[in-house]
Parts: sequence; structure tokens; C-alpha cells
Amino acid sequence: MAETEYVPPKVWKWDKPSGGSVASINRPIAGATHDKELPRGEHPFQLYSLGSPNGQKVTILFEELLAAGFGGAEYDAWLIHIMEGDQFGSGFVDINPNSKIPGMLDCSGPEPIRVFESAAILLHLAEKFGAFIPTDEKGRAECLSWLFWQMSNAPSMGGGFGHFYRVAPVKLEYPINRYAMEVKRIFDVADRRLAEVPFLAGEDYSIADIAVFCWFRYFHSANAYDGGTEFLDILSYKNVDRWVCEIEARVPVKRGLRVNLPAEGCTAERHSAADIDAVMG
Amino acid sequence: MAETEYVPPKVWKWDKPSGGSVASINRPIAGATHDKELPRGEHPFQLYSLGSPNGQKVTILFEELLAAGFGGAEYDAWLIHIMEGDQFGSGFVDINPNSKIPGMLDCSGPEPIRVFESAAILLHLAEKFGAFIPTDEKGRAECLSWLFWQMSNAPSMGGGFGHFYRVAPVKLEYPINRYAMEVKRIFDVADRRLAEVPFLAGEDYSIADIAVFCWFRYFHSANAYDGGTEFLDILSYKNVDRWVCEIEARVPVKRGLRVNLPAEGCTAERHSAADIDAVMG
Repeated sequence: MAETEYVPPKVWKWDKPSGGSVASINRPIAGATHDKELPRGEHPFQLYSLGSPNGQKVTILFEELLAAGFGGAEYDAWLIHIMEGDQFGSGFVDINPNSKIPGMLDCSGPEPIRVFESAAILLHLAEKFGAFIPTDEKGRAECLSWLFWQMSNAPSMGGGFGHFYRVAPVKLEYPINRYAMEVKRIFDVADRRLAEVPFLAGEDYSIADIAVFCWFRYFHSANAYDGGTEFLDILSYKNVDRWVCEIEARVPVKRGLRVNLPAEGCTAERHSAADIDAVMG
Repeated sequence: MAETEYVPPKVWKWDKPSGGSVASINRPIAGATHDKELPRGEHPFQLYSLGSPNGQKVTILFEELLAAGFGGAEYDAWLIHIMEGDQFGSGFVDINPNSKIPGMLDCSGPEPIRVFESAAILLHLAEKFGAFIPTDEKGRAECLSWLFWQMSNAPSMGGGFGHFYRVAPVKLEYPINRYAMEVKRIFDVADRRLAEVPFLAGEDYSIADIAVFCWFRYFHSANAYDGGTEFLDILSYKNVDRWVCEIEARVPVKRGLRVNLPAEGCTAERHSAADIDAVMG
């Protein structure tokens, strides 16, 4: 393959599937591909998700809210099989027109309210319960800054580094190098911040930590993309290491990480605390 | 270059600059590279930015607030020359440890408050003035969902498509194809939404529109990355076209687009309405 000789056409055409092992779910068009209603449970919050980092953010926050005594945060968590195309079903697209997990319905009020994008869901819930977000203006601004920072970084970590390092059908040095550099920079930004303060927004654990933690934990503790942890020397970020380990030790975090995964020690759906209790061991 | 044969090393090393024309500003480490204090003006808000899409979001919102009669939204806009490394100066890093434009100091209260990430600044200002964000819970959730959607999309549009289509030193078919598909999907998501409602959050123009508009306008109206508009057939998205043209026609938008650009018809800095008046022609 002589990549140096590639000349893009005047107008791009969708002439073949592309994306390696995720080619079947990559499309240049939006919208539903089939009719499929979503199930609806009894709790005030209906979550449609998968236990990947973006989905974990929300189940961790729900478990934190419940552990903190907010009984109103009871939720049903339904599994969206993205490799089977559930995100393109009409019911899911009605909740999230972007066809990505997670999507949520807030049924706690007079009419259901849809919320999509993981951080929008975090902010919606934190504001609703008045928890896990600083109440003073300075702290709130800091929390929002780091929360949006995470959202603008994640595409370099997953769709960038993860895709080119493992998922793509061919290993390309230039994109791997580009995203390796960027992921290291992202870790260093957080590492310097966490040298100064215990949590990203300052003194207190907040939704900014939950959002960043889910992606950082994958790179730190889960041998990201088969080798990425060593490739990026993730364990050299000592302040991140301290912070990841501290958050990972929280019981609500351990519980949230087990939801919406059809795997040993996890639960594909969650409709009550007992569903998680049963797999906590 | 036999890209198919590339085997990543066990541990990545920063052994050479990378990134084509932006190689000089790509680094795997964070933090300041040199001491440099930032200037400070008289107005309540101090913006340190550049008139690229992420910077335009904030100057447009300031101009919208001023046009709507919020005199408290007066601002000084200072130019950050990113190709000269201003974003790595100590003063800027103190405001935005991520070393990206825009960064802002809110000096309207008893102590200055830093805010970074363009959408965090938009949300901070919209909440402060109670404007350009819906006040009902459902509308607010919709606005936040689309605002976070924009932040998680922009990296595929600029750092993804723009980088591989134009900036990278070598044209690689696979990444160009990957990000072309994704940008088209992003436009289609918005196009379908804008077929149903006049603005992203519903009936009213909001910070979600401002955020998405700045990137969409570049792809729609500015021959994105020397050919991208035709390559991606951007003008075929008819509802986006209607919406971009409508927003582009707003006077505060026209004003905001002229700030922090050292170019004909624009102003490198903005310290009063007169600075923009002088170049509006």
C-alpha cells in the first residue's frame, strides 16, 4: 500500500465498509435503521447503556447518589448491544439522535425528559440532587471546565489512540504516533493538576472526577487496547495513579463498574441493588 | 513507506517532532515552557483567545449578550498566537492548564475565577446572565445534551478530518476515510434535528447553536481545509444550510466572528465596541 500516493477524490463516496472490527457500526448517515421500542421499568430514571467508559460514568454516579442517601436516584439500567446495532433502533434514536451510549430518560417529573451525552447526564443528575458538584461559583466553574475537558479529550483516547493502535485493520505509524503523543499530554495535564489538589475540581470528589476516572482507569488498570498501558507508560503518572486507586476503592464505584456488562462478575441489567449485590462476591 | 509493516515498539518514545505544519505545538507533556504574564484590562471579563471556531463561540456569545442589553458582559479579548506558543506561557497555563484557546478570567466578583474549555465558558456566561439557555428543565436538558454533543464531536472535525485531510505531512486514505464518514454523520445528525425544530435545543436560539454553528460554519461557508466543503458535500445538508445562514445573518454573530484575528476586516484585540465598529465596514 503506497499511502504517500493517495489523492482524495473531489467528493467522498461511501463505497465500502471501513473501520476494521467496528466497520459494521460506522455509518456516514444518522437516524434509525429499524423499529424497536425500548423497555421501560418502574424507577424514576431509565438508563440505556453499556458498561464501557462512557456508560460507567453514569452508573457510578447513580451508585454514588444512592450510597449518599438519595433514594430518588433509583434507576433501571438496560443493555444496549452496540455490536448488534441496538443504538440504531428507533426507540434509542428517539432518546439519543447521535446513536451512542448512554441515553437516559428522566421520568421523575410530569413528563419524561431525554438526556444524551454522558457528561450532560452527569450534570443533569448532579444538579437535580445537588450533589457531586461544588456549590460555590469558583468551584462550579472549575468542575465544569474539567468536565468539558474530559469530553473534548475522550475522542483522542478511544476513537483516536484506541482505534489506530488496536482496532484499525492496518497499523499506521503516523496516526498512532499522533494519538500516543496526545494521550500522554492529556495524562500529564491531569497529573500536574492532581499534584496540587486531591481532586480535579479542588478539595472534593465531583462529577469531573467520575468522568475522567472512567477513561483514565481503562488506560491505567485494564491494559488498554492490549498493550496501551505499557506503550504509553501510564503508571509513570504518579499523581494520577494515587487518584485512580483512591477512586477505584470506593464501593459505589466498584458497584457502578459492574453494570451493563454481560460478563462474569457483572450484570447485564440493573433494576435493584440486589442485581449488583448478587455479583459483588 | 510500507505502512502495513509498522510494528509499534513496546514503549512509545518522543523521538521526533510530528504533526506536519503543527508539529511545533504538539507535545506529549503539559505545563508552561516559559514565563509570560498575561495583560489585564478594565472589563469584568478577560478573554485570552484566537478567532478560530472554538474562540469564536465565546466572542459571539459576548456580542449576543451585549446586543441583548447585558452591559455587564463587557470584555477585553486578547490574542493568543498559538503558532508562536503563547498557549505555553505561564500566565495562560495558569488559566488553562490544557494550553488550548480559549481561556477566560471572570473578574466580575470578589476574586477572579478561571474558566477553560469553550463550552464551559459558554455555560458559565449563560448561567451568569440567565440568557441563551432555556429555563425549563426539559429545554435545559436538551440544550446541555447538544452542547456536550458538540464538544465530543469537534475533535473528529478539526483534529481528525482537518488534520488528516490537510495538515498531516502525508495523505493517508484510511484516516481520511474514517473522519470523512464521521463528519458526514455529525452533519446528518444535526440536519435531521433541524428538520424538526428551528434550533438545536428547540424553539429558541441558545448556546448549543452558538457552539455547533462555529464549527459547522467553517465546513459550510469557508471551504474547510481547502476542499473539505465539496469533498464532504456539506451544502447537501439543507436544514443545516437554512440554520447556518440564519445564524450567520445575526449582527452579533458577524461582530463576534471578527474578534481575535490579525487579518483584514478583523481586529486582533477587542477592548470596546468601537474596535469592532471600526472593521465592520
